[in-house]
Amino acid sequence: MKTPGSPFVAYCQPSRFEGKVVRIGAAPPNAPGTGAARTPIHLLNGTLTPNGLHFERSHSGVPDIDPSVHRLLIHGLVKRPLIFTLDALSRYPMESRIAFIECGGNSAALNQKDPAQLNAQALHGLISCAEWTGVKLSTLLDEAGVEPAAKWILAEGADATGMSRSAPIEKGLDDAMIALYQNGERLRPSNGYPIRLLSPGFEGNMQVKWLRRLKLIDAPATTKDETSKYTLLTPDGKALQFVFPMEAKSVITQPSPGLTLREPGFHEISGLAWSGYGKIARVEVSVDGGWSWELATLREPVLSKALTRFRIPWRWDGGPAVLQSRATDETGNVQPTRAELLAKRDAKALYHFNGIASWGVAQSGEVTHVYA
Amino acid sequence: MKTPGSPFVAYCQPSRFEGKVVRIGAAPPNAPGTGAARTPIHLLNGTLTPNGLHFERSHSGVPDIDPSVHRLLIHGLVKRPLIFTLDALSRYPMESRIAFIECGGNSAALNQKDPAQLNAQALHGLISCAEWTGVKLSTLLDEAGVEPAAKWILAEGADATGMSRSAPIEKGLDDAMIALYQNGERLRPSNGYPIRLLSPGFEGNMQVKWLRRLKLIDAPATTKDETSKYTLLTPDGKALQFVFPMEAKSVITQPSPGLTLREPGFHEISGLAWSGYGKIARVEVSVDGGWSWELATLREPVLSKALTRFRIPWRWDGGPAVLQSRATDETGNVQPTRAELLAKRDAKALYHFNGIASWGVAQSGEVTHVYA
Repeated sequence: MKTPGSPFVAYCQPSRFEGKVVRIGAAPPNAPGTGAARTPIHLLNGTLTPNGLHFERSHSGVPDIDPSVHRLLIHGLVKRPLIFTLDALSRYPMESRIAFIECGGNSAALNQKDPAQLNAQALHGLISCAEWTGVKLSTLLDEAGVEPAAKWILAEGADATGMSRSAPIEKGLDDAMIALYQNGERLRPSNGYPIRLLSPGFEGNMQVKWLRRLKLIDAPATTKDETSKYTLLTPDGKALQFVFPMEAKSVITQPSPGLTLREPGFHEISGLAWSGYGKIARVEVSVDGGWSWELATLREPVLSKALTRFRIPWRWDGGPAVLQSRATDETGNVQPTRAELLAKRDAKALYHFNGIASWGVAQSGEVTHVYA
Repeated sequence: MKTPGSPFVAYCQPSRFEGKVVRIGAAPPNAPGTGAARTPIHLLNGTLTPNGLHFERSHSGVPDIDPSVHRLLIHGLVKRPLIFTLDALSRYPMESRIAFIECGGNSAALNQKDPAQLNAQALHGLISCAEWTGVKLSTLLDEAGVEPAAKWILAEGADATGMSRSAPIEKGLDDAMIALYQNGERLRPSNGYPIRLLSPGFEGNMQVKWLRRLKLIDAPATTKDETSKYTLLTPDGKALQFVFPMEAKSVITQPSPGLTLREPGFHEISGLAWSGYGKIARVEVSVDGGWSWELATLREPVLSKALTRFRIPWRWDGGPAVLQSRATDETGNVQPTRAELLAKRDAKALYHFNGIASWGVAQSGEVTHVYA
C-alpha cells in the first residue's frame, strides 16, 4: 500500500472479497414470505453468529415496525393487564446471556432415504448463536401478577401471519427473556425487531419474533404452528406436541462438503455442539465412520444453551475417511446415530433431527455428505 | 401487519429506525486516513460490539487487501523464516476468545481542565469487545524456532503508513493470537482484514491490523508509534515507553449524556468495566459523587480481558445526583479518581486515562459530563 486507504464509515461492512459468506434462502413460490435463510456455518468460526448472518425462518416476511408505535401487551389470567412501550421496557432491569437458536426443522433433509448432496449450510444452517440482552419475562409477570389458573403463555408476533405459540408458564418464570438487543445492538428486523421472546434451548419458533402480545391462559391455545406444524410424528401414527427443548447435537463445520482438503497432513477438525437441556459435557470425533472415537477440546467457558466450538487435530493419511461428531450434554443425553433416531420416528417425521451427521472424505480430498 | 413483509436477504442490516446507532468519526484534514471512529456505547447493551460498530483507529485509512495475495512473514531471530498464505494459516489449530480492545487514547478528553460537553460515545467510545478466532502466535513461533537472543517482536501492518509496534516476546509466547475471525465472520476491513495481531489487554495499537510481518529482534525497534506517540508523559518531563496493559476502568453507559431521565422512580444504572490485567473483580457505583458506594451486579461469566457489563437498580428521587462507577480487577488494581490520576501525570499526558468518570443528573433529568 503506497496511498492512504478508504476513510471512516458510520457502519462497517464485510470485505468485498467475502461476498460468498452469505445466507442462502429458500422460499416456496406459492406462499409469499414463508421460508428460511440459512447461516453459512461452514465459512464461520468461533461460537457466535454475526447479526447479518443469523439464520431466519419467517412465516410472512419481515414486517417493518416503527418502535415508537409498537406495544407489548400482557393480559389474560393476570391481576393487572399491562401494556409496554419500548421506552417503558428500557426502564426495567436487564440481563445478558449467550444462547443458540435452532429451528425445529434444522437438518430435516437427513430424514431422506439418500444423503442429499448439499453442504453444511444447506443441511444444518438453521442454527445460530448470539448474546441477547433484555428484560427477564419473570420480572414483567411478577408485576402483572400471575393468577393461579395460568398454566400457559400464548406468545403472538406482529407479522402478517400472527405467528403464535403456547409456552408453559414455568418457562416464563424461569429463563425466558423479552430480548431487545442482539450482540450489543438492537435486534435485526429479520430477528424480531424491536422485541422477540427468547426461550433459551427451545425450538426456534418458540422464540416469537416481533412480539406484540403475551396472554396467560389455562391450556395451550393449539395454534396452527403447534398442531399442523412443529409436532413430531411417531411410528404409531400419533404426533407428539409441545416438544420444546432441542436435543444434544453437533456438526463438523470444517472440513465439510465444498471445503476440499488440498493435501494429506495436519488438518484441524472443528465444529459446533449444543443442547437445549444445558451445557455440552463432551464431544467425541470419529474419522472412521463411528468405529473409534476421540475426545475433542471444547472452547471454554462452556455456556448453558449456547453453541460450543469443539476442535481436534487430525493427520489425514490421504486415504478415504468418514468424519463424525457425537455430543453429550450435562444431563447425559447422547446424540444418537441416524439409524437409532429414525427407528424411533415415523417415516414422515420432520422436526428435531439430531442424529449424527457424516462427511465422507475421498482420496481426492473432496468431502461429501454420506450416511454411515 | 396485514400483508407479507420483506423477503429474505443475503446479509441482514439494522432496522431503518436505528439510523442514529452509528460510529462517529474524526479525521484531521491535513493527514488523510488518520483519525478514529467511536463505538456508540451509550446506545448498545450487553458486552459485545457488533462488527459494524467496532471502534476504529486508523493511521492511513483502510487498505483494500485481496486475501489471495496477502502474506504473513515471520523472520529475524528465528531458526526457520516462514511465510504464510491465508489458506496455510487456516490449516493450523485455532482458538476462540472474547477480548476487548481499547485505544490508548480513549477518554483523553478527561485530561482537559474543564469537562468537555460530549456524550459517552465521544468521550469513551474507543472501546469495543468481540469474540476473536485465530491461530495462537506461540504455535507459529514454535514452528519458526525462536532464537535465544530474540526478546521482542516487531509487528508491522500492510497499511500505507506501515503502522508498527514492538511487543515483548513473552506476549507472543503467552496469549497473543493471529486473529482471522471477529464475532464468527472474517475480520472487517476496518479491523484488519484479513489478519490482525490480537494482544489481549494491551493498548489498541498493539493489535496491529492488516498484519504482514513479524520480525523477532533483540531490542525494541523504537518505531514512531512507540516514540513520538503512545508514550506516557510524567511530571518530571520524562516519558514512559512500552506501557502495554490497559488499566482497570469502567464507564456508566446508561444513563449518560443525551439519555435524559424522563421521570423520577426506578432506573437501572448500567455500564462496562474492563482491565488489561485480567478479570474484573468488582464494580462499585455511587450516585452522590463518590461519597457512598454500592456493589453492582456483574454479568456472568466474567471473562479475563473482556468487557464486563455491570448493572445496579436506582430509584431516582428527582433531585440532583452525580453518578460514578469504580472498577477493581482481580490483581487488586482500583480505578483511581480523576484527581488521583492527574496528580501522577504530566499536564500534557494523553494516553491511558482510566480515571473515574462522572455524570451529573439535573432536576430536569438532563445528564451532563461533570468533574466531581
